Amino acid sequence: MTQKLLNPHADVVTLTAQLVDIPSVSGNEAQIADLVEAQLRACDWLTVERLNHNVIARTNLGRTSRVIVAGHLDTVPVAQNDKAVLLSSGQQLPVEGSTLSEDVLFGLGSCDMKGGVAVALRAAVTITEPVFDVTYIFYECEEVDSARNGLTKIAAEKPEWLKADIAILLEPSNAKIEAGCQGTLRAQIRTTGVRAHSARAWMGKNAIHGLADALSLLSTYEPLSVDVDGLEYREGLNAVGISGGIAGNVIPDEAVLEVNYRYAPTKSAKAAEDFVKEFFTGYDVTIIDNAAGALPGLDRPELKSLLTMVDGQVAPKFGWTDVARFSAMGVPAVNMGPGNPSVAHARHEHVPVAQLKECEELVMGWLRG
Amino acid sequence: MTQKLLNPHADVVTLTAQLVDIPSVSGNEAQIADLVEAQLRACDWLTVERLNHNVIARTNLGRTSRVIVAGHLDTVPVAQNDKAVLLSSGQQLPVEGSTLSEDVLFGLGSCDMKGGVAVALRAAVTITEPVFDVTYIFYECEEVDSARNGLTKIAAEKPEWLKADIAILLEPSNAKIEAGCQGTLRAQIRTTGVRAHSARAWMGKNAIHGLADALSLLSTYEPLSVDVDGLEYREGLNAVGISGGIAGNVIPDEAVLEVNYRYAPTKSAKAAEDFVKEFFTGYDVTIIDNAAGALPGLDRPELKSLLTMVDGQVAPKFGWTDVARFSAMGVPAVNMGPGNPSVAHARHEHVPVAQLKECEELVMGWLRG
Repeated sequence: MTQKLLNPHADVVTLTAQLVDIPSVSGNEAQIADLVEAQLRACDWLTVERLNHNVIARTNLGRTSRVIVAGHLDTVPVAQNDKAVLLSSGQQLPVEGSTLSEDVLFGLGSCDMKGGVAVALRAAVTITEPVFDVTYIFYECEEVDSARNGLTKIAAEKPEWLKADIAILLEPSNAKIEAGCQGTLRAQIRTTGVRAHSARAWMGKNAIHGLADALSLLSTYEPLSVDVDGLEYREGLNAVGISGGIAGNVIPDEAVLEVNYRYAPTKSAKAAEDFVKEFFTGYDVTIIDNAAGALPGLDRPELKSLLTMVDGQVAPKFGWTDVARFSAMGVPAVNMGPGNPSVAHARHEHVPVAQLKECEELVMGWLRG
Repeated sequence: MTQKLLNPHADVVTLTAQLVDIPSVSGNEAQIADLVEAQLRACDWLTVERLNHNVIARTNLGRTSRVIVAGHLDTVPVAQNDKAVLLSSGQQLPVEGSTLSEDVLFGLGSCDMKGGVAVALRAAVTITEPVFDVTYIFYECEEVDSARNGLTKIAAEKPEWLKADIAILLEPSNAKIEAGCQGTLRAQIRTTGVRAHSARAWMGKNAIHGLADALSLLSTYEPLSVDVDGLEYREGLNAVGISGGIAGNVIPDEAVLEVNYRYAPTKSAKAAEDFVKEFFTGYDVTIIDNAAGALPGLDRPELKSLLTMVDGQVAPKFGWTDVARFSAMGVPAVNMGPGNPSVAHARHEHVPVAQLKECEELVMGWLRG
């Protein structure tokens, strides 16, 4: 029965389609984790562990380096796209309606990230003697809040399972290497004033006017570009929300500006916090969340052969992803997986067949040496 | 029966208490208008008209000047304060709890403005030969939106009833003359941008940042003080609302700043609009409402004797009131009525007994000459 649902010895496209057809919205990964675990346990070169719906499989060949190959099993909620459909170039893409210029696999999770999971699972069950020791991680609840994330759970309860020299996360990146990721901080800048009738404004103090300098600073700020290992990370400091006002005839006594700071992976969370507080000197600044970025780790010897395979083509990652979780645990991480990240979570989610194959070749080639 | 409910030949405090005891929340003025009308019709020196719940009584003595004495009959909603209570100095003020330093009449509308209505009604039924011809106006729905206001209705259907050289509105002003009133304009300043992920801010254009110059202009603007007939009107241009933002990781593509401009009564509504549009040059400005102010009219000969009675003590009116409606109809108007405007609409609304008497003396003395 299991073999019919999930056959990693089929090709990568077929396996991705099988994975799409197994529902696994965040919190409901039991079935897919069971099926993946069974495939891994059939391989005598792997030691398999299970923690909730997280499945970890390790080789123990006594190699000098260990690499992590990771992907999450969950998806965002279903949107009439829970069955995989293989479509050929020239056919119409469901929902979105455009004419396809290449063969794609359509379906929830095809891009984010059952294509990547298929590549990892095929590597695990076929490569008996990788050049590095490998830890394959299939985890739960990436699409929901951080506290439920499978990596958070593993790091808290079984940190030794996460020891490695480098990690590759197979999140969609058009099968290109995206290295590191920027940090992200959100803060509230709050002004207070004195409420008064607007016909007698001089009796009050206008809290909205108090944000003038903060907005001027933001609008003239030139964000840094930071070079790390030859990659250019473009920082950003931006207003993402503003609110204030009581009624059309009242001088407001409170206003709040919310800003988002995206910062280079060379900066610590503390340094980012200090920067924002200094930037808004004289204002009441509250940090509401802050997650440091991840260094690209491109200087790691384990990545040398992979970089050669892609002719050194690497892009910096601007968004925050789970590579930062690995980085925070001391494991440099890069992102490289099939699929265009801009269609992740979309109703017309799909993955190009060519990218599935290209990514598989890269990962397999790298691990085989 | 009517006499028991409303006896204008009692003293002004008793009459105010009787008026307070007749419920007349906006829209429910039928009973109070009927009672007032009956009292006026009993006076053979008055011509009485009725339009909905608006009652107008005029002398027709062939005087060279005609003055309007006006007050609204309605109140804001009841807040456990619908029965008049006469309280002596040293007693406690209901709801608010402070110890009174003078005798007051407590109750809904005592201040805003049945005290003023009592003064007007007593003048109408006792002064048979005023020095000016007088038009007494008792009107409905002042406390609700402009379209329902009794003066709006009279101006639309019977504009000839409102012809006069000067008007006195008996709205609470601590029995002092407040002259004219400032205009008020509200406008929205809207910025647009381009939405983008905040990790790639350079792909977007931040609409909130676009408000920086507008806030800087506001925060450094020095409002004018305009002298009119020796009164200093202090203008004001203020933010009264600001909003923008989509999510903590999105560059916002729209932001809106709402401003309120309070302007001197020498300015027309058009001039105020031009000023605001010019002030925010380069921005998308939408005027959302605009009501011109009212000139104080203190140069009118009809006011000469009243100004003498108060030793020339006159204050400028900053808030917008119905005196501006009279002004818009070509009738200069001043405000002078018993009660502290800051307790109008309060649960502990009340009017000092001394102010009722003082205001009555002023109005009666002025009309008797």
